[in-house]
Amino acid sequence: MPLGDRAGDKSESRYCGVETEFDDDVPQLLLSNLSSAGFDFVVAPLMDPSYRPSLMQKENGGSAVLPFAGSDLILSPAQWSSHVVGKISSWIDLDSEDETLRIDSETTLKQEIAWASHLSLQACLLPAPKGTSYANYARCVHQILQGLNNMQLWLRIPLVKVDDDSTDVKSDHLVDSWDLWNSFRLLCEHHSQLSIAIDVLSTLPSPNALGRWFGESVRAAIFSTDCFLTNSRGYPCLSKRHQKLITGLFNHSIQVVLSGKPLHNVSKGSADLPSGAQSHPLRCYLDYIAFLYQRMDPLPEQERIELGYRDFLQAPLQPLMDNLESQTYETFEKDRVKYIQYQRAIVKALKDRVADENASSITTVLMVVGAGRGPLVRAALQAGEETGRKLKVYAVEKNPNAVVTLHSLVKMEGWERIVTIISCDMRYWDASEKADILVSELLGSFGDNELSPECLDGAQRFLKQDGISIPSSYTSFIQPITASKLYNDVKAHKDVSHFETAYVVKLHNVARLSPPQPVFTFTHPNWTPDGSNQRYKKLAFEIPNDTGAALVHGFAGYFDATLYGDVHLGIEPSTATPNMFSWFAIFFPLRTPICVRPGSPVEVHFWRCCSPHKVWYEWCVTSPSQSPLHNCNGRSYWVGL
Amino acid sequence: MPLGDRAGDKSESRYCGVETEFDDDVPQLLLSNLSSAGFDFVVAPLMDPSYRPSLMQKENGGSAVLPFAGSDLILSPAQWSSHVVGKISSWIDLDSEDETLRIDSETTLKQEIAWASHLSLQACLLPAPKGTSYANYARCVHQILQGLNNMQLWLRIPLVKVDDDSTDVKSDHLVDSWDLWNSFRLLCEHHSQLSIAIDVLSTLPSPNALGRWFGESVRAAIFSTDCFLTNSRGYPCLSKRHQKLITGLFNHSIQVVLSGKPLHNVSKGSADLPSGAQSHPLRCYLDYIAFLYQRMDPLPEQERIELGYRDFLQAPLQPLMDNLESQTYETFEKDRVKYIQYQRAIVKALKDRVADENASSITTVLMVVGAGRGPLVRAALQAGEETGRKLKVYAVEKNPNAVVTLHSLVKMEGWERIVTIISCDMRYWDASEKADILVSELLGSFGDNELSPECLDGAQRFLKQDGISIPSSYTSFIQPITASKLYNDVKAHKDVSHFETAYVVKLHNVARLSPPQPVFTFTHPNWTPDGSNQRYKKLAFEIPNDTGAALVHGFAGYFDATLYGDVHLGIEPSTATPNMFSWFAIFFPLRTPICVRPGSPVEVHFWRCCSPHKVWYEWCVTSPSQSPLHNCNGRSYWVGL
Repeated sequence: MPLGDRAGDKSESRYCGVETEFDDDVPQLLLSNLSSAGFDFVVAPLMDPSYRPSLMQKENGGSAVLPFAGSDLILSPAQWSSHVVGKISSWIDLDSEDETLRIDSETTLKQEIAWASHLSLQACLLPAPKGTSYANYARCVHQILQGLNNMQLWLRIPLVKVDDDSTDVKSDHLVDSWDLWNSFRLLCEHHSQLSIAIDVLSTLPSPNALGRWFGESVRAAIFSTDCFLTNSRGYPCLSKRHQKLITGLFNHSIQVVLSGKPLHNVSKGSADLPSGAQSHPLRCYLDYIAFLYQRMDPLPEQERIELGYRDFLQAPLQPLMDNLESQTYETFEKDRVKYIQYQRAIVKALKDRVADENASSITTVLMVVGAGRGPLVRAALQAGEETGRKLKVYAVEKNPNAVVTLHSLVKMEGWERIVTIISCDMRYWDASEKADILVSELLGSFGDNELSPECLDGAQRFLKQDGISIPSSYTSFIQPITASKLYNDVKAHKDVSHFETAYVVKLHNVARLSPPQPVFTFTHPNWTPDGSNQRYKKLAFEIPNDTGAALVHGFAGYFDATLYGDVHLGIEPSTATPNMFSWFAIFFPLRTPICVRPGSPVEVHFWRCCSPHKVWYEWCVTSPSQSPLHNCNGRSYWVGL
Repeated sequence: MPLGDRAGDKSESRYCGVETEFDDDVPQLLLSNLSSAGFDFVVAPLMDPSYRPSLMQKENGGSAVLPFAGSDLILSPAQWSSHVVGKISSWIDLDSEDETLRIDSETTLKQEIAWASHLSLQACLLPAPKGTSYANYARCVHQILQGLNNMQLWLRIPLVKVDDDSTDVKSDHLVDSWDLWNSFRLLCEHHSQLSIAIDVLSTLPSPNALGRWFGESVRAAIFSTDCFLTNSRGYPCLSKRHQKLITGLFNHSIQVVLSGKPLHNVSKGSADLPSGAQSHPLRCYLDYIAFLYQRMDPLPEQERIELGYRDFLQAPLQPLMDNLESQTYETFEKDRVKYIQYQRAIVKALKDRVADENASSITTVLMVVGAGRGPLVRAALQAGEETGRKLKVYAVEKNPNAVVTLHSLVKMEGWERIVTIISCDMRYWDASEKADILVSELLGSFGDNELSPECLDGAQRFLKQDGISIPSSYTSFIQPITASKLYNDVKAHKDVSHFETAYVVKLHNVARLSPPQPVFTFTHPNWTPDGSNQRYKKLAFEIPNDTGAALVHGFAGYFDATLYGDVHLGIEPSTATPNMFSWFAIFFPLRTPICVRPGSPVEVHFWRCCSPHKVWYEWCVTSPSQSPLHNCNGRSYWVGL
């Protein structure tokens, strides 16, 4: 029974699990924890905890049976896979000094995983590494991952981070469990089936330190009953910080698992039980979690539409080289906010250009370059109407298919006397007169990456010397991020060229490690003789002290554009235009993720390079460690002129 | 409105289209052909047929609009893509001697395809090549395919094949349109978005010649009204041979398109029209096609389950190296027919082994090697009961997870005194007594490909010298096939190793070009000293004379096993055990498909090779042309011992 019905949310975080003891009778275990208690799945040991391979008598002719909880037939295949997560025996210690224990642990781990695979379970929970040595544990898990079916392995990691400035940290004490996870997953080569179950404790690390985990592959969060406080009526509740964490978990599709003995004696309270049913000892905790789930705001409409795009890598559009399709225009034209901003900018420009007293005598020549199917033409005409300025509009468009729509739009709206359609690439059009205002929307997620600079350099030939370009400037931004899913998706292609490509992506399961910084700026019109569009920028990002160490998988890129005066439009997170959906962020991956600690800035270099037929970016990291130069000569990724 | 509701059939062949003239008013075109007439889509010209680029005046400043049928906005994106297939102007001739016509044709083709892509149409119909020269046509289509979105291009091909023995064939006359298609697609490098719309004429080629097309990527079949006959009541109908063809089309997910002028005057007949509605001129033809569709038998249950597997390449199981999962056992255990055959074989063996008069005194030792979760143990015990023979059964199984189920089965059924479970690999078990009957089911789709020979060679140590093996022998078979979809799916991996791998596959859209022939046979027990399991076979396949030429993309493989006496079990098509579903066929691809003509046999070589740790196949073709040796040293595909 899911936690609740949150409009638009179809993620796994609706389901809540419970950690149980070993029980031979799995059907009964499901009955008491799911059907009558309301949990959706159990995290249950698969094997008798007293089992040790070295104590088993070799019975006659090898016919010994392993002490699993029942046979595969006691549940249907669908029940096994939907309702049971296998909990690997917590006594195992693959790095023990005691050789018998170590070998018993290896054998048991492999037998339990084999059994769980046989049952087609969706996941197994691996116990947290014991102590500071876990090389043999990681080696065995790595071995297992090589031949595993689709099952996920959730490595249990306690959510611990002791602040660096606390003095008496003992050497064998866990300082930051993120380091433990990072070492383990590096040994396992970032395997995509190795993920995390965080153990939430009563004390939480700082928000920055917590934030790192949202860029990692956390699948479950185990809440022990002792992280709960008691409210005035004796019921369990969570601290504000724990509540904030749990909302974050829900929003990142992470499932909650309850664990431990009941510490609040409120079993009488649950009113909606069938008469005679025994209340589950953790029922009041589950009710509280469900309350927190149901209390969340419904997912906004736009977020729902974009659900399927979350963390999904897309190749950026190449609207200059390729023609957009009708459906692409259709989608972008729906972005009302964008066209309102353009209309506001044009209104201000028209008023600055033509004083009120000249409104009826002066006609402003406005050219929309890259008119597409006409939305900016409409915005311009509406601005003209709003200001009472007279307009002559040229709509220049290179895509002959969009020109068909433009013609039918002009006819339908009766704009024939104001609007002239030019079916031509703006870079080569031989205009018969010059423009007062040049309006364009040629921006990509990274600002200049769809070659707005090159197009507008070509188009400004027919802009008057004192003419206005809307946008008047734009700037790209980057910031380092943890993004293990994106990294694994790029890695799955098994070649260098995908690591040297930028992707458009709706960033979701990522950790933003340091605020974005500006990279390249372009200003229009640009009358400087021989103004080059090549750029080079070196940036240094500091990770906040309380974050702890983190892994940088690459850089998120954004843009902000000044349309005119104080009217801007952009996706840089701190200033992003609300409710605009035409652009997702861009992602520049790193071939090898780089581990960064506070105090060692991430030094990154970005180049924008141009040749007669293409434009491309190159990038590299030089601190805290050296990366290769990415995309040398645009060998993997470029934008065609 | 689909042709009808055939239980279980969700394929595209439910939808029927109609070829129309150019109409500026596409919404009206849809209204008159779909909503009120019952067709599901139109195949309609997108551009005014009188348009010639060379005749267009260059209008002022390049603002000319192409004469497309309306703008993209006249239909919704969903309507364009579901209900309109673009028909490319049929006047185009890209290989004309007339240079103006040739250049006009190139320009128009590219403009129309660009427009169709802009609209996100699912497909465009390309006119059939004119004459015998079509290199420039193919070159332009190849160019277009390089940058195409998901749209399919249906090349129109008339279904013509003149028998070779007809004497007065003129040189410029189309002899076999398959050759035309084959040349065109070879020029286009087998591109997966280039497919076929066959033009069905009143005369049909031979059944063998028709059969070739089911292995090619035919998406539509255009029936002109002049292929219809007239029945006694004046209604259109098709000849028996045309009816058989159309059933084949339906079964291969090929859509029917009606075309031409009405030749039967029965417009008054349609009773179910809303009053006042004008009957569509082709309505009686559509009704007849719908009648043929609805007349088909519903899809059998097993076919429905297997729909999702049709022509889907799977890696063969490696049950010796890997352990099967619970769900895999579950699936295979449902194959009742297979276990009935085993039971019949065991019954015969028991009767031959123990005479009726000794039934109560002699106990037969029967060993099931590879017992899995126990279905063959059950079959053996039922055979014992049926014959009244006394049994002692050993169930030998190497997968410790399946042994868990075996134990619980034996306990549940009360078989403890008859059945002994041995948790061990049969190759290494140290048996305490010898068996009268050794029962196994270790067969793959290609018989020996799951290493039954090696396993049984190891197991016969504990079979009495006069003991019986069930199965007693098995033989693999191959036959050459046309399978363009499978070929393209293998090719999509862009490496050699996928072309050197055998795949398990539910063959569907394939053409079987020549009857299967036996490849390798294994007999058990095999007491010959040092009997090797290496094999080599050379086979020659003849394509029937009336087939014409065909392309061989690889070989379909099957097996047939003799269980005991006359009880057999297998998937070789001519003798396949009915209603058995444990095995699909196997497919051995060729790196380069080979074109074969009647009279030139396909000479193929197959090797079964063994090393201490693996077994693999190598294969090659030496006639009518030479292929490379595939899978040398098992470098790409092997089965682990």
